[in-house]
Amino acid sequence: MNPDNQPNIGFIGLGAMGLGMARRLVSAGFSVRGYDVNPTALQTLAEAGGQAATSAADAARDATILILMVVSAEQAEDVLFGKGEAAAALPQGSVVMLCSTVKPEFSRRLATRLSEAGLAMLDAPVSGGVIKAAAGELSIMASGEPAVFAKTEAVLNALAARVYKLGDECGQGSTVKMVNQLLAGVHIAAAAEAMALGVRAGVDPQELYEVISNSAGSSWMFQNRVPHMLAGDYTPLSAVDIFVKDLGIVLETGKELRFPLPLSATAHQLFLSAAAAGLGRQDDSAVVKVFEQLAGISVKSEKSDA
Amino acid sequence: MNPDNQPNIGFIGLGAMGLGMARRLVSAGFSVRGYDVNPTALQTLAEAGGQAATSAADAARDATILILMVVSAEQAEDVLFGKGEAAAALPQGSVVMLCSTVKPEFSRRLATRLSEAGLAMLDAPVSGGVIKAAAGELSIMASGEPAVFAKTEAVLNALAARVYKLGDECGQGSTVKMVNQLLAGVHIAAAAEAMALGVRAGVDPQELYEVISNSAGSSWMFQNRVPHMLAGDYTPLSAVDIFVKDLGIVLETGKELRFPLPLSATAHQLFLSAAAAGLGRQDDSAVVKVFEQLAGISVKSEKSDA
Repeated sequence: MNPDNQPNIGFIGLGAMGLGMARRLVSAGFSVRGYDVNPTALQTLAEAGGQAATSAADAARDATILILMVVSAEQAEDVLFGKGEAAAALPQGSVVMLCSTVKPEFSRRLATRLSEAGLAMLDAPVSGGVIKAAAGELSIMASGEPAVFAKTEAVLNALAARVYKLGDECGQGSTVKMVNQLLAGVHIAAAAEAMALGVRAGVDPQELYEVISNSAGSSWMFQNRVPHMLAGDYTPLSAVDIFVKDLGIVLETGKELRFPLPLSATAHQLFLSAAAAGLGRQDDSAVVKVFEQLAGISVKSEKSDA
Repeated sequence: MNPDNQPNIGFIGLGAMGLGMARRLVSAGFSVRGYDVNPTALQTLAEAGGQAATSAADAARDATILILMVVSAEQAEDVLFGKGEAAAALPQGSVVMLCSTVKPEFSRRLATRLSEAGLAMLDAPVSGGVIKAAAGELSIMASGEPAVFAKTEAVLNALAARVYKLGDECGQGSTVKMVNQLLAGVHIAAAAEAMALGVRAGVDPQELYEVISNSAGSSWMFQNRVPHMLAGDYTPLSAVDIFVKDLGIVLETGKELRFPLPLSATAHQLFLSAAAAGLGRQDDSAVVKVFEQLAGISVKSEKSDA
């Protein structure tokens, strides 16, 4: 514990989301020691009042809570038990808070492995995007033992507007996050398919957006992502590649559970089509370009003020 | 015109939606002469203060506006030019207001044919369901000539909370409605796929519904239809067969335009699967039973208070 009785935070994975979360914790008064392979991110954290660690293990030593906001399960495993050696560096009894979106099965297995090493875990995938991360207004879909929730409560409250406590076992939070990503991915791809059909059929895209936004066909993603399409602005707030990964998690879980997921599989193919066209690092709404390029149309609106 | 200078309304198609709309017009002070093959619907209209016509042609004679709320384009054609002979019975210059969901191409062709017969048309598909129909709170996605909008304005305002004026040509309103139905259908099927996966993976369905409703995976349809699934109540507010038809319209239009619609096609197959299982006349949310029956699970919640 640091002087004001707050937990010491280690933070690994300072991408757009992670850096926002780490800075938010600094401004909430926590001592944050962060690591990322990208030196620019380390410098930004240091300038914001955090500490730049020299390695994953360096971020972990002295941490009472180690937050992982890495890209994938593979990275989480490598950071903790592979080259990163962070698990070995953590003080006994510390909590690993896994905020990445991973397969529920991976989260369960990781909790067991950490427990065998004398460490606790909170399954804590987040939702809400870069802007809400920086503002401490994420949603966190968490599961874990009550004692672990108690230890992490101040940190969860600093990061999130909503903390859902979804059970005592790691994996339960990740399952809910996975279902959310299934819907988010299908809805973005459906918004693209719908807007593209409307334009192909001769409707003004801005007008179409306004009517559908107020109708039964609307979705959170339709309202959030279609303005990117209308503006033709594909600056990646969340990338096509994220849904290649997240719908991949959905489909792998479906395969393991022997459960058919026809819409998820179709949406995954659309994001893979976008990635095949070289759009993987563009905003996920760029999936509409699959339709645009095939049919020689544009959903960009002359009327858009974005 | 009747004494208080209101248009005389003919109304054909008194199903759940049509009857609600016709009664709403009666209570707004219009003279309404309605027809349906179902005698119970005619009696209900008469008891509400409307007039029961003896045939489609009888509903059309003396009408300044003839509203069609029939099930399909085939029925609309049959009522007007086939066995119904309503077009021939309409006074010259009257307006046919087509509120059914039809292919945009059908709407365009019908407008031409009516015009050749000295009649006007408003392309006016509605959205909002049975409850909003009865309350005069529909959304209407309308297109047609300005003079036709002027003639129908009082009627549109009595039926709808929102009237979208989508252009001068019939077909433009139907195109926007079609895109809305594409999204609505995909979103209902996606809600079913997502809830079923969550339950199969061990999550409590009520809790899953509450988290997703407040997250980026939400949609208007998710919030509206999942409570039917949680309650296990498949009383048809809108039936599986409606989306078999409406996504069929979407896919036929895609074929005519040479435009690929992978998510619409997949969702259509799910509604067809539900229809194949004998669920066609149940609520459209019964598409979830395709997953339930295959996997031997239930998304019905013990905690649901519905």
